[in-house]
Amino acid sequence: MAATIQHARQHWGAFNTWQNHSLVQHRDVLLQAYQQVRQSTISLTDGLSAEDMNLQSMPETSPAKWHLAHTTWFFETFLLNRYLQDYQEMHPDYARLFNSYYNGIGEQYPRPRRSLLSRPDIDQVLEYRRYVDKHMLTWLSGIDEDRFPEMAKLVILGLNHEQQHQELLLTDIQHSFSFNPLSPAIAEPLSKQQHPGELQWVDFPGGITSLGLTAEQHQRGFAFDNETPRHQHLLHPWQLANRPVVNGEFLEFIQAGGYQQAEHWHSDGWSWVQQQSISAPLYWSSEGSAWHRHTLAGSVELDEYAPLSHISWYEACAYASWRGCRLPTEAEWEHASLACNPETGQFADDLHWQPAMTQSAGEPFSSLFGSVWEWTASSYSAYPGFCPPPGALGEYNGKFMANQYVLRGGSCVTPAGHIRASYRNFFYPQDRWQFSGIRLARDCQTG
Amino acid sequence: MAATIQHARQHWGAFNTWQNHSLVQHRDVLLQAYQQVRQSTISLTDGLSAEDMNLQSMPETSPAKWHLAHTTWFFETFLLNRYLQDYQEMHPDYARLFNSYYNGIGEQYPRPRRSLLSRPDIDQVLEYRRYVDKHMLTWLSGIDEDRFPEMAKLVILGLNHEQQHQELLLTDIQHSFSFNPLSPAIAEPLSKQQHPGELQWVDFPGGITSLGLTAEQHQRGFAFDNETPRHQHLLHPWQLANRPVVNGEFLEFIQAGGYQQAEHWHSDGWSWVQQQSISAPLYWSSEGSAWHRHTLAGSVELDEYAPLSHISWYEACAYASWRGCRLPTEAEWEHASLACNPETGQFADDLHWQPAMTQSAGEPFSSLFGSVWEWTASSYSAYPGFCPPPGALGEYNGKFMANQYVLRGGSCVTPAGHIRASYRNFFYPQDRWQFSGIRLARDCQTG
Amino acid sequence: MAATIQHARQHWGAFNTWQNHSLVQHRDVLLQAYQQVRQSTISLTDGLSAEDMNLQSMPETSPAKWHLAHTTWFFETFLLNRYLQDYQEMHPDYARLFNSYYNGIGEQYPRPRRSLLSRPDIDQVLEYRRYVDKHMLTWLSGIDEDRFPEMAKLVILGLNHEQQHQELLLTDIQHSFSFNPLSPAIAEPLSKQQHPGELQWVDFPGGITSLGLTAEQHQRGFAFDNETPRHQHLLHPWQLANRPVVNGEFLEFIQAGGYQQAEHWHSDGWSWVQQQSISAPLYWSSEGSAWHRHTLAGSVELDEYAPLSHISWYEACAYASWRGCRLPTEAEWEHASLACNPETGQFADDLHWQPAMTQSAGEPFSSLFGSVWEWTASSYSAYPGFCPPPGALGEYNGKFMANQYVLRGGSCVTPAGHIRASYRNFFYPQDRWQFSGIRLARDCQTG
Amino acid sequence: MAATIQHARQHWGAFNTWQNHSLVQHRDVLLQAYQQVRQSTISLTDGLSAEDMNLQSMPETSPAKWHLAHTTWFFETFLLNRYLQDYQEMHPDYARLFNSYYNGIGEQYPRPRRSLLSRPDIDQVLEYRRYVDKHMLTWLSGIDEDRFPEMAKLVILGLNHEQQHQELLLTDIQHSFSFNPLSPAIAEPLSKQQHPGELQWVDFPGGITSLGLTAEQHQRGFAFDNETPRHQHLLHPWQLANRPVVNGEFLEFIQAGGYQQAEHWHSDGWSWVQQQSISAPLYWSSEGSAWHRHTLAGSVELDEYAPLSHISWYEACAYASWRGCRLPTEAEWEHASLACNPETGQFADDLHWQPAMTQSAGEPFSSLFGSVWEWTASSYSAYPGFCPPPGALGEYNGKFMANQYVLRGGSCVTPAGHIRASYRNFFYPQDRWQFSGIRLARDCQTG
Repeated sequence: MAATIQHARQHWGAFNTWQNHSLVQHRDVLLQAYQQVRQSTISLTDGLSAEDMNLQSMPETSPAKWHLAHTTWFFETFLLNRYLQDYQEMHPDYARLFNSYYNGIGEQYPRPRRSLLSRPDIDQVLEYRRYVDKHMLTWLSGIDEDRFPEMAKLVILGLNHEQQHQELLLTDIQHSFSFNPLSPAIAEPLSKQQHPGELQWVDFPGGITSLGLTAEQHQRGFAFDNETPRHQHLLHPWQLANRPVVNGEFLEFIQAGGYQQAEHWHSDGWSWVQQQSISAPLYWSSEGSAWHRHTLAGSVELDEYAPLSHISWYEACAYASWRGCRLPTEAEWEHASLACNPETGQFADDLHWQPAMTQSAGEPFSSLFGSVWEWTASSYSAYPGFCPPPGALGEYNGKFMANQYVLRGGSCVTPAGHIRASYRNFFYPQDRWQFSGIRLARDCQTG
Repeated sequence: MAATIQHARQHWGAFNTWQNHSLVQHRDVLLQAYQQVRQSTISLTDGLSAEDMNLQSMPETSPAKWHLAHTTWFFETFLLNRYLQDYQEMHPDYARLFNSYYNGIGEQYPRPRRSLLSRPDIDQVLEYRRYVDKHMLTWLSGIDEDRFPEMAKLVILGLNHEQQHQELLLTDIQHSFSFNPLSPAIAEPLSKQQHPGELQWVDFPGGITSLGLTAEQHQRGFAFDNETPRHQHLLHPWQLANRPVVNGEFLEFIQAGGYQQAEHWHSDGWSWVQQQSISAPLYWSSEGSAWHRHTLAGSVELDEYAPLSHISWYEACAYASWRGCRLPTEAEWEHASLACNPETGQFADDLHWQPAMTQSAGEPFSSLFGSVWEWTASSYSAYPGFCPPPGALGEYNGKFMANQYVLRGGSCVTPAGHIRASYRNFFYPQDRWQFSGIRLARDCQTG
Repeated sequence: MAATIQHARQHWGAFNTWQNHSLVQHRDVLLQAYQQVRQSTISLTDGLSAEDMNLQSMPETSPAKWHLAHTTWFFETFLLNRYLQDYQEMHPDYARLFNSYYNGIGEQYPRPRRSLLSRPDIDQVLEYRRYVDKHMLTWLSGIDEDRFPEMAKLVILGLNHEQQHQELLLTDIQHSFSFNPLSPAIAEPLSKQQHPGELQWVDFPGGITSLGLTAEQHQRGFAFDNETPRHQHLLHPWQLANRPVVNGEFLEFIQAGGYQQAEHWHSDGWSWVQQQSISAPLYWSSEGSAWHRHTLAGSVELDEYAPLSHISWYEACAYASWRGCRLPTEAEWEHASLACNPETGQFADDLHWQPAMTQSAGEPFSSLFGSVWEWTASSYSAYPGFCPPPGALGEYNGKFMANQYVLRGGSCVTPAGHIRASYRNFFYPQDRWQFSGIRLARDCQTG
Repeated sequence: MAATIQHARQHWGAFNTWQNHSLVQHRDVLLQAYQQVRQSTISLTDGLSAEDMNLQSMPETSPAKWHLAHTTWFFETFLLNRYLQDYQEMHPDYARLFNSYYNGIGEQYPRPRRSLLSRPDIDQVLEYRRYVDKHMLTWLSGIDEDRFPEMAKLVILGLNHEQQHQELLLTDIQHSFSFNPLSPAIAEPLSKQQHPGELQWVDFPGGITSLGLTAEQHQRGFAFDNETPRHQHLLHPWQLANRPVVNGEFLEFIQAGGYQQAEHWHSDGWSWVQQQSISAPLYWSSEGSAWHRHTLAGSVELDEYAPLSHISWYEACAYASWRGCRLPTEAEWEHASLACNPETGQFADDLHWQPAMTQSAGEPFSSLFGSVWEWTASSYSAYPGFCPPPGALGEYNGKFMANQYVLRGGSCVTPAGHIRASYRNFFYPQDRWQFSGIRLARDCQTG
């Protein structure tokens, strides 16, 4: 299968969607980027049947087919309907069927029922994509030069939006497949990893730092509204682990009875553990002392040296507490990440779709970008002076600033070129179906 | 579309599975029946996409693909695995994936998650059907003559089982399609019906009658265990309506405020109406004074003269109470039905799949068989002396004899030749996705 | 404590409310009965604190204080408000607070929240009782002679209603106390019972019998509407056990793995067992091999020779199946009970409030009346020709004829003189907080 | 009633529990404080019946009786059991019955069922209080001088704990009473308030500030662990409203359709509004254009000039967004509060128990302390370097640092002398039964 998949997925990732300033300046580059990002989404579904693409295993996930349609709806709704004169929607009902959560746009088909949309079928959705792509390319080619930069910015938002759904498409199908005893696979198993070395601490002295996109970055490229405005923040001396926690280390927590000891858990986390009978990360299963993990490569033996993933914020906090440590704040994480290059690491384009440890020469941290998203101690909230854009696009990020916690750094299913130091991902503290892991932090002993 | 469907569905119903005694006596007739029933199941899915066939809109329904596989599993489990020497199952996991509820056979994949089984896909399930059919035909052809009658009886059980799932396949896909704003259709709308005439009462004097399959029938053909043993029952004088309730009559109940008046409802029914905000039969919707129904022919205008369907037992009882009547007991219904021929009426083979009124010459009742299942006042329970067969097949009917109510007579999606006077169907009092309707009864005024 | 309780409860049960024809004929006898029944309700609360009397442990149960008020409301609503000229309700809100389920009377305070009614407090409720009693006695004394029999019938209905709530008051407080680790007690433990003897079968030949109140009984006394009309019913030959199942016998079922074997259970019962993790009758608990029961006398050792109680219909059916038997139908039970005197047995007036086996000289059955209610195989439904009274009193029984199963014979907390052969009690198949037990039946082996 | 209540409540509040350094230094002062705080708890229950004191209207609230017992248990568990030699618990089961959430101490009686504990009754709980008080006084009097300061700190923690439960006792009984149509009252209605004046903004330039208890305060008195360690924090220029939002202002939000416009709400808040059908603050009800509020003084007319209370964090955020403002962060709030005296304001000792506006001479803010708790934008989390104490007391605050938002300033039911600038209260974003209100903030227009 691997050969086919490699071939089908060749369209991946030549473009960096966030700091390639050519996108706004050169129309041909943007046209090429548009086609490549759109095509790479399709390539992810290689090996998936029509039934696979319509799976939805919980309200939080969506069918692959729905992702394909929704990302298309985004371009149709926020660009073609608004800026392409006389544009006719391909189908009058798609506006409602494929609106995710934009109340400003109109009614939405109920999210938990997306898998009930057997129609339009996958062929019709692919036709929808071609229809919108054709009009997008026509429109993009014809925009007046003076309006191009403004319009290009919206297209780039659409491309970044599509990249986010590329990641979700993979995590959602992994979740759906976890309920099938036949253990479907759409990737190759990774070979066993090497010992990651003892965890080491990197010291930071604290002081005033700046968070959010730099002016230069903002000039050059793209950021979501939630990364702005850039602002100053006071840090206290801290230490950050040189690498993420690996499976074998978390196994020690399990074996030491970590899931049975209330003292390491938040009160809500302890209730969650007990009510849901949680005793291991998502996708882990054991027979006797042998552990397996459900992955996009099917069921594989647990690799004790691979980065831990698929844990909740509650588990991350409990593990950190048990180790006498804590999670980093997002400000600490972002400050530390300035030492690393966000363009190197293990990303979706590698087609592994299972976390491995990476190390770039000259960097103090392994796998800071890519591999696994790293839970932070920070509740997801507005930066000082935050102001979402007007209209329905203002719903993109701001309205989710309640009850969620921030993750940083991207994962092995994040498209390369999509992540950056200031990038803020967010999920609920019980969520586990993303590639979420842990990088430990602690206060400096002598403060 | 109709032409194609007609063609594809030509395999329907030449056989009467319950009183064709040739089935047990003539091997070639049984072989032909087997092929025809199996083929007619496939024909039902004509016009359905792979995604359509994997829909499951509530735990009580199953994907069409699952019905195709489960009916196949039945023959494999209860015949091939037991009686065909050296039979190899096509796939070791199918036994678990496609077991519905037979605890005696082993573990079952959780019923509410059947739509998560994207794999095996529809092509693999069709291959499974062909694999089992091939072995069934080989095996049937080779059974010793003296064992044939005994084996034939099990095959006929399997065919009746498959016919039950043919009906469910249609009612389940109708339910799933009801959530799709695109209103998918797999049948042609019916033309508007004629006035059914004023409801008239047929008198019965009461006395001792016999219920359950007659000895002659049992000799000649097939019955489920729950129709036995035949036994005597004392009836009190009663009257039965000459035809089922039609939509226009139920509309009067709605317009008179029937859904807002507690006095007509059972206490549990009233709670159900209020908690679920019920104000019309399932699939009915109104804009202003215009009512529409979701059907297998898509959304159609409500036909006031067509038999009412898709109501709960609670609604049936409330309507009867509002009319100063009651539902018949199943004993009354069965006794009255002796005046009609169960082989005539509106059945699935007509391909209408929406209820219409029928009248056979010389019979006192319209649509007693076919058109809509008729709720009775009787809780589903064991007949005196009932004894289920030993082993897992004993789970077929007996274990459901709690909390359900009996329906009689078959419907427009019941295969012709499957229904009989003693046939007992059963559903929970809140269930509405079957073609369930009402035939009124009342006590004789002068006792 | 016992001495005080004995004294306080001396007002119990001198009257038989259902066959004492003097009640309708002699005003002084009715006046005396009224006072005695009302007083005996109060006596049940002896030893209960204000907090005890306001407990409600689940929606199905009610606080003792609420029972005291609701039974009073019944007389106020259906008698004083209707027939006593210029009667002024003591409080305008009580009509709503203490209406149980009579939609015809008006809105009801939500049932699951009855324990939130800290006010009126117990003193105010007792004052309400005195207020209504005073008016009832005045009114009863002054009714015209010719209207007296008609009014007396309503009063007798109210007294029977109050007796039903006497039983509920005790079963509800037992349930509430079961959540208190301090094991409150309001009765004395029973001494250990004698071996009940091997279970024996009593034969019945079947044939036509009559069910429901006899004309003579109806002339003489009281019956609920659901016991009428008297009608003929055809019975098939059967056998009935001479005594109820005892704890030790049910323990054998537990020890044989009965709660883990699906084959003995209804499908709904099996789901109930698994979802609720049921492994023993309600109120049973074990440490090692020692079993205890929570009773109204606190926690006591399980007495293997005492009649089994506090089981669901599902458990009753599963046990019967495991023994190769079945439950009797209510018709069989009623027919068999004609051999026993409903006025003898273990009733609430004995103040034991825990089941013991009783045997009346010359009767073929032990404990048929009293001790424990006996689940039957019969779904609770209307008798042929049943017609509830008009108005709100028509809600007394009829609207509950769905989803419940009939129990017969009364229990150790039923007031003596309240039960009769035709009496139909009914609960949901999962209900266990009543004194519900099993008497086995089976079909005659040779028909 | 008022006179009696005034009398009974005379024991209130002579002591400031957090900055009265005499408590640690002078044994007689601590003894007096202990008696006064303990007695003032009792005084709150004046006018409550035994049934009132056992009410529990939702899992988050507790019966008054339980508060009386739990605060006593705290002294028994963390002081007498540990430090008073040969101390005998009054009852062996109370440790389990009255443990709230300390897993380190042992099992807890299930929180949602506290109202099922009719026993011990209120007299026994009062006896428990006397028993523990007697031993506490004996023990306190006999402690060695050198151990006294250390022990005194634990006693002061217990007194602050008891004061927290004084507030909860009042908010919980208000919630319980809201379900009683009789509208019970335990306070006097407030007279109508004066116009609060147009809202004005107070400017703050930002810069580095220090949060948490000052060293001097810590030396002098008491703080909870979650207020420590004191640390520096960088503030950005902002403005804070001079007074809280009043009812009339919130009414404008309602009348402008605020509860129907998704754009002002967090996504989770919008779901909450729709699923719970929220259309006004808790305890508000309207008939036509007249609004009433349920209060501890019964049902009263809405006073448009009184501070708004009983709203969720979601409502606070939506209102702020609708006004083009935001909530202050807890750092902003604490910094601003340095301009006010936490010992003046409307507190529980005033016995009003309904919010009124207060203004202290020379202070820029009205009602910053007292009146209503003010929701902040800050998720409740650990301060940099936070380290909870070892053992079960470490569960006091730390384990709740997930999913809750911080409120500041105390309310009209907070005991005087209990609040301070660094005090952090926290509740879930949907919680409304506390006296929670809004003080608006906004970013400085010119940054």
